[in-house]
Amino acid sequence: MNLLRGRFGGDVDAAMRRFSSSLDVDLEMAAEDIAGSRAHARALLEAGLLTDEEERVIAGGLDAIEREVAAGEFRPGDELEDIHMAVEARLVELVGEAGKKLHAARSRNDQVATAVRLWLKRRLAELDTALVLLIEALLARVESDGRTLMPGYTHLQRAQPIWLGHHLLAHAWAHARDRERLAAALVRVDRSPLGAAALAGTPHPIDRRRSAERLGFAGPVENAMDAVAARDHLQEVAAVCAIAMGHASRQAEELVLWSSEEFGFVRLPDAYTTGSSIMPQKRNPDAPELVRGMTGRVFGDLQTLLVLTKGLPLAYNRDLQEDRRPLFDAVRTTIAALTILAGVWRSLVFDRARFAEELAGAFLLATELADKLVEAGVPFREAHGAVGRLVFWCEQEGKRLAELSLDDFRRFHSAFSDQVTERLDPEAAVERRTSLGGTAWSEVERQVALLRDGLPSR
Amino acid sequence: MNLLRGRFGGDVDAAMRRFSSSLDVDLEMAAEDIAGSRAHARALLEAGLLTDEEERVIAGGLDAIEREVAAGEFRPGDELEDIHMAVEARLVELVGEAGKKLHAARSRNDQVATAVRLWLKRRLAELDTALVLLIEALLARVESDGRTLMPGYTHLQRAQPIWLGHHLLAHAWAHARDRERLAAALVRVDRSPLGAAALAGTPHPIDRRRSAERLGFAGPVENAMDAVAARDHLQEVAAVCAIAMGHASRQAEELVLWSSEEFGFVRLPDAYTTGSSIMPQKRNPDAPELVRGMTGRVFGDLQTLLVLTKGLPLAYNRDLQEDRRPLFDAVRTTIAALTILAGVWRSLVFDRARFAEELAGAFLLATELADKLVEAGVPFREAHGAVGRLVFWCEQEGKRLAELSLDDFRRFHSAFSDQVTERLDPEAAVERRTSLGGTAWSEVERQVALLRDGLPSR
Amino acid sequence: MNLLRGRFGGDVDAAMRRFSSSLDVDLEMAAEDIAGSRAHARALLEAGLLTDEEERVIAGGLDAIEREVAAGEFRPGDELEDIHMAVEARLVELVGEAGKKLHAARSRNDQVATAVRLWLKRRLAELDTALVLLIEALLARVESDGRTLMPGYTHLQRAQPIWLGHHLLAHAWAHARDRERLAAALVRVDRSPLGAAALAGTPHPIDRRRSAERLGFAGPVENAMDAVAARDHLQEVAAVCAIAMGHASRQAEELVLWSSEEFGFVRLPDAYTTGSSIMPQKRNPDAPELVRGMTGRVFGDLQTLLVLTKGLPLAYNRDLQEDRRPLFDAVRTTIAALTILAGVWRSLVFDRARFAEELAGAFLLATELADKLVEAGVPFREAHGAVGRLVFWCEQEGKRLAELSLDDFRRFHSAFSDQVTERLDPEAAVERRTSLGGTAWSEVERQVALLRDGLPSR
Amino acid sequence: MNLLRGRFGGDVDAAMRRFSSSLDVDLEMAAEDIAGSRAHARALLEAGLLTDEEERVIAGGLDAIEREVAAGEFRPGDELEDIHMAVEARLVELVGEAGKKLHAARSRNDQVATAVRLWLKRRLAELDTALVLLIEALLARVESDGRTLMPGYTHLQRAQPIWLGHHLLAHAWAHARDRERLAAALVRVDRSPLGAAALAGTPHPIDRRRSAERLGFAGPVENAMDAVAARDHLQEVAAVCAIAMGHASRQAEELVLWSSEEFGFVRLPDAYTTGSSIMPQKRNPDAPELVRGMTGRVFGDLQTLLVLTKGLPLAYNRDLQEDRRPLFDAVRTTIAALTILAGVWRSLVFDRARFAEELAGAFLLATELADKLVEAGVPFREAHGAVGRLVFWCEQEGKRLAELSLDDFRRFHSAFSDQVTERLDPEAAVERRTSLGGTAWSEVERQVALLRDGLPSR
Repeated sequence: MNLLRGRFGGDVDAAMRRFSSSLDVDLEMAAEDIAGSRAHARALLEAGLLTDEEERVIAGGLDAIEREVAAGEFRPGDELEDIHMAVEARLVELVGEAGKKLHAARSRNDQVATAVRLWLKRRLAELDTALVLLIEALLARVESDGRTLMPGYTHLQRAQPIWLGHHLLAHAWAHARDRERLAAALVRVDRSPLGAAALAGTPHPIDRRRSAERLGFAGPVENAMDAVAARDHLQEVAAVCAIAMGHASRQAEELVLWSSEEFGFVRLPDAYTTGSSIMPQKRNPDAPELVRGMTGRVFGDLQTLLVLTKGLPLAYNRDLQEDRRPLFDAVRTTIAALTILAGVWRSLVFDRARFAEELAGAFLLATELADKLVEAGVPFREAHGAVGRLVFWCEQEGKRLAELSLDDFRRFHSAFSDQVTERLDPEAAVERRTSLGGTAWSEVERQVALLRDGLPSR
Repeated sequence: MNLLRGRFGGDVDAAMRRFSSSLDVDLEMAAEDIAGSRAHARALLEAGLLTDEEERVIAGGLDAIEREVAAGEFRPGDELEDIHMAVEARLVELVGEAGKKLHAARSRNDQVATAVRLWLKRRLAELDTALVLLIEALLARVESDGRTLMPGYTHLQRAQPIWLGHHLLAHAWAHARDRERLAAALVRVDRSPLGAAALAGTPHPIDRRRSAERLGFAGPVENAMDAVAARDHLQEVAAVCAIAMGHASRQAEELVLWSSEEFGFVRLPDAYTTGSSIMPQKRNPDAPELVRGMTGRVFGDLQTLLVLTKGLPLAYNRDLQEDRRPLFDAVRTTIAALTILAGVWRSLVFDRARFAEELAGAFLLATELADKLVEAGVPFREAHGAVGRLVFWCEQEGKRLAELSLDDFRRFHSAFSDQVTERLDPEAAVERRTSLGGTAWSEVERQVALLRDGLPSR
Repeated sequence: MNLLRGRFGGDVDAAMRRFSSSLDVDLEMAAEDIAGSRAHARALLEAGLLTDEEERVIAGGLDAIEREVAAGEFRPGDELEDIHMAVEARLVELVGEAGKKLHAARSRNDQVATAVRLWLKRRLAELDTALVLLIEALLARVESDGRTLMPGYTHLQRAQPIWLGHHLLAHAWAHARDRERLAAALVRVDRSPLGAAALAGTPHPIDRRRSAERLGFAGPVENAMDAVAARDHLQEVAAVCAIAMGHASRQAEELVLWSSEEFGFVRLPDAYTTGSSIMPQKRNPDAPELVRGMTGRVFGDLQTLLVLTKGLPLAYNRDLQEDRRPLFDAVRTTIAALTILAGVWRSLVFDRARFAEELAGAFLLATELADKLVEAGVPFREAHGAVGRLVFWCEQEGKRLAELSLDDFRRFHSAFSDQVTERLDPEAAVERRTSLGGTAWSEVERQVALLRDGLPSR
Repeated sequence: MNLLRGRFGGDVDAAMRRFSSSLDVDLEMAAEDIAGSRAHARALLEAGLLTDEEERVIAGGLDAIEREVAAGEFRPGDELEDIHMAVEARLVELVGEAGKKLHAARSRNDQVATAVRLWLKRRLAELDTALVLLIEALLARVESDGRTLMPGYTHLQRAQPIWLGHHLLAHAWAHARDRERLAAALVRVDRSPLGAAALAGTPHPIDRRRSAERLGFAGPVENAMDAVAARDHLQEVAAVCAIAMGHASRQAEELVLWSSEEFGFVRLPDAYTTGSSIMPQKRNPDAPELVRGMTGRVFGDLQTLLVLTKGLPLAYNRDLQEDRRPLFDAVRTTIAALTILAGVWRSLVFDRARFAEELAGAFLLATELADKLVEAGVPFREAHGAVGRLVFWCEQEGKRLAELSLDDFRRFHSAFSDQVTERLDPEAAVERRTSLGGTAWSEVERQVALLRDGLPSR
């Protein structure tokens, strides 16, 4: 049965049918399509286009299809090009004539747009949960292990000692912003296109506000043409996902680095690693590698969605059918990657001793020395230069800062006093950084509280 | 003079200097760098790291440099790798020792991040203005020409008659969402990294909140590492630009189509077209073509920014220097394209007669006929099928709907009554679509008022 | 059964298993994995690592699995993470101990890389066929309809009259270059990684050249690390696909334009259009719209593949598992889109009368007039200016060029002679363009012959 | 002076002029534009459209402009929208009437396309040189330091011992393929569009083959429409650049890792590092970080070029003006990055002792043990399992493989014989891998010779 081809003499051949079908992708919107139809049937009832009985029969048919979907028994034939035609065809099969009345006052254009938005609302809630779980996992590690001294890096070079918690919080803040962006995107998603019909609205007296309400939307899209032609909310969601994946990829990179023998900071749990097919001693950090590897996939999905509408005239064009594949992939991949990452953070083991080793011997406290000179009134650039020459000399002579005498220090700047050595304790250095956002533990605790405040209560 | 190379024996060779310099790009942040330094000097004064006199001297030096910049007389030497070093070097030249004290309690990492955010705040205000002007231009055309009947298109096929205003409003709503996205992005941009120093904060007692306030930020970034490592706010801005350019490209496409001889809906103003170097009769729609052509540029900028941080460990890495070029390009290109587009909308001439011609003869009112049958209780799918056969027959016979007798109609469905002909008036068809968001003029007016409400008052 | 987890205490949990499995994607490489294993078993036999009997048993098992795959009866369990483990596990099930000997002297790294290259060799032949069919379809239309006058466009403005064949040939040449690029990419694909093992080669005396030969490769990859770490051949293939899709999108755009009522140049066959769910009169150009819509998908796949290896250290990293999804999608989508496009070209109907209408009345021959003046010795810029003023005057006065008297022409330049009118015949104008690559029919025929020469003979 | 606006009443306003000008970008094609014009003047002479004297005067004028360009004295006014108009305007200024004759039988469409191809031919030669220098730098390091044992990595976990040379060669081979791709792309670039005029060729009897020859092209583009509309050769070049940058980014990542304190494999030369503005002890690997950071820029350029032509109808559209910015940026950035990378490889210092340390204590030789069992006839999967349990036990007991007794080994598999210990020498393990492409030194030497053969002789 093909509902649309009344006027055509020829037939769509099999290759074209495969080419143009989106059933493999949009089958997963079955529940959303049914929900949209249920709300639309109510609207038609209220507009006098369905009788009570017809509406009841349709609702019953939709319920039955929903059960088939849930049971995995809904298997539309190949000749149906998308989930929307498939549900309608099944409905007509189940309830007869009444089913043929359902498509009044709507078009597939608004029907599809509504289903995609409903799908997004459900999935973005899951994405937010994934972000929350990841932030919680990070905060839990700050609390359990955060008071571990480690080298802070810039340029992957050891720069200054910090608390591990300070580092983990930077990742948590990034994801807190991802949640903000997600909430902002949801405002644009949360509008109902239902009843916009093909592009011009409908002459039938349906109440689009009420349909929107029934479906849980904040309100209707205000312009019918915009309702069916707009895809910017999808692009925005994909951008939110891409940015979140970028954040995930930075943690993934660090987890790969930190679990290398050279860094040795963490041991990943067995559940998130695999062995090698040929080298039995390997503990490959598969989970973070896959997270990192999936980053480009979401970037690609975003690019696909952007290119899709480039230069498209209004209103609906069939190109737009290609929106679901990249959208669904971006959202699902991001949820999966963030969820796995949270699992990794929750279950990995920090090698706290190894962090400490890292601090010894390095010149991580050179900034402290420069800061000390600054406190003594030496211009920063002069202090910086003096300490630079001091470190250079140490390297040449194979000396560590802790071994130097006051005379050694004075050779490089006369403003060094005997308090200089107190600057060579990493914990003291860390704890002196109490300015807002600094690595001092009090600041770490303040931020944990702030971030927890932003999370949904359980 | 190279401020950083105290400890190096060798020298950066010329090729590497060119390769690593960002002066050509960040010169345009000179004012923002100076503003940041001015606020920082005040913070150092309050923290006791500068005397009143030193702060006064520094502020004077910064003022002088700002004047040089404004006058186009600030020309830093090649050996200075970025605007920040260039300003500091010039300051030391102008004011001597005091200048060397300015870099205490900060690092280039927070200094750069602050300047970029200040630049963005200024430029995003301009971007918002460009969006407002474009929306206003569209609304003005809705008011002046919107009550023109035209074919609404789907699949670039004439679908149903609409008011031109209904169509133009779809574009206006898209840009209204661009403004929402921009405002949302600004929340993330509007935080001060100043005082985060390299990644760990500073031991000096500076007040980051106060610095943020002085610079007009809503507050400080809460974590020092995040403050220097985060680039998601730039990616978000680029995404906002890319999405807005996507919207612009759809209008550009329509303007190109509509100004073709075949469509003939609009005549572009001379100011936005050019002739051909070889074909003197041509009126090439250069402005919309360039807008469309710049779309991919902004998509590319967004991808560049996303790829930039993929897999980067915390905190600052030199890769991040590459953020400004795509960011600046995305923002500037979008502002320019939207501004030009607004100019085109303001000044083009609609050929209202041509729109009307388009409506005659086509089967644009077929949906009306199906809707009429639905009102008479015919199931939509049955109505749709009957009208489909009717249209097919007309095409075969070379007849137009307006020429048909009631008997002709009845041959395709017995529910056609003599009211059927009243459905064949395009204006009536349009005005019947009064459901929310429909093309009826009352709905057009409602939306114009709504959109105007959302614009800043003048 | 998990072949790799001998040393792990814990277990990969279900979420991680789903996250890390690639079976849904790489199941389609089953035949290639089996082919690789068959060749490897022969290599092990020759190296003395398998007995004749063991090799025979293994080959038999592989044959059996291949039959299961062909019959759709090969359904690996969820616990197997990819097709390679799945085939090996099934082999051990079928043939016992001998099966466990197969993985000597190889690693999954070279095994996967080999299967992907074999898959590509098969699919790229299909892609080339798709290109050939499309070029042939275009050439057939040049021959059947090419001698139709039409306006050539620049800026979507009518510019100069051309033969339709001249226009269609431009598309054919673009795809001829796609074939060149494909052939070039194949050179990089056509190398065998088999036997490279994990990254260092193998101590076992296998003959990689012979394995390469058995599998039909031009030779082995020369460096074992490169063999498992390289993905540039995939990126190159994706780039070839992206560029070809770009070409397809330009034709798709033209087909959408040309089938609009406004242009009316072509009528798409029913098989490649659909009706509307609400507007029965519509003939939507679905096929070209979908082709255009899939363009961004392949661009996204390319971006995904590029981002994948950005910043990845050697050699294999698990990220690389993510290469197959975008690669397979790019290749399959491109084959499908080009095939559909060829079908559209083959079966559409040109409205030759409509093309002719387009030529009347327009100022398409203005260039001819300028060229005529040039032949009379007038500097081009002066001729160009004079004709521009002439056209401007015609527009003002509502006159067509054909209506003008010699005096009219002379008013704009005294060098116009009475031969000027002969320049106002479009066919003559077209046929004068005999310089190489010009639109004259002789040049069209020359190019058809050239392009046919480049196609494989049947 | 505006050469094109004869027919326009209005004027392009200043904003539009800035928006549409490409002078800032294409100024760098001045020499190529002049070369094209010189060849075109010769063609016009031969076609009888210029006299000997006129051609001589024009050639003289072009020479003069070229000298102005070379001297930096060519400064076209803002009102000229691109380099082509600028040169022509200057020519008319310099030589008068004859200059106005130059634009006969060509259009800006073919003029621009010719200049871009000439520019590319020059620059792609530089790009090839950059690749050659980088390959040579790598080969030189293979020869000077390649016989250093190091851990080969997969998943950034130490996997098996290899020669450093084996690793460096993997990078060299990748770039050798970049050269192949570049040569292939050049075939598509190396065709002359000159004389194709706007889209239809020209009625004037110019000889396009001869013009192509004069300009050093392999031949003309065969179809005039294709000549002005095609941009796939630019997309292909950008793809070649993107892929090459991907290769560079992998080396850059390794250089960053290897120069970290944790890896400590290399010390980057001072010329390619910088200090920190706040931490004087830092040696930041700026050069590789910038190379890595520029990767996304070239990916973005490629996407920009792909999006540019998506859905563009033939032939020239003004969008295409936007091709030069991303193209030039991609090519220049890639040349610069590869050149810097070659400099880094040439001048860095390997810490050979550090590599050796890495090998001790790890379980890098576990594969050797499994291979040994395989040689003794144990099925690989059984051998793999046994060694896995052995390594697990060592880790638990804190033992190294070298400390184990034969009994210890036998506890895990009875097929271990007293030859097992000979497998625990890394160099022997490496030297056993003599199969083609293996890490044995003989294979390294073979590959160096092969690669050198492929380089241009000096």
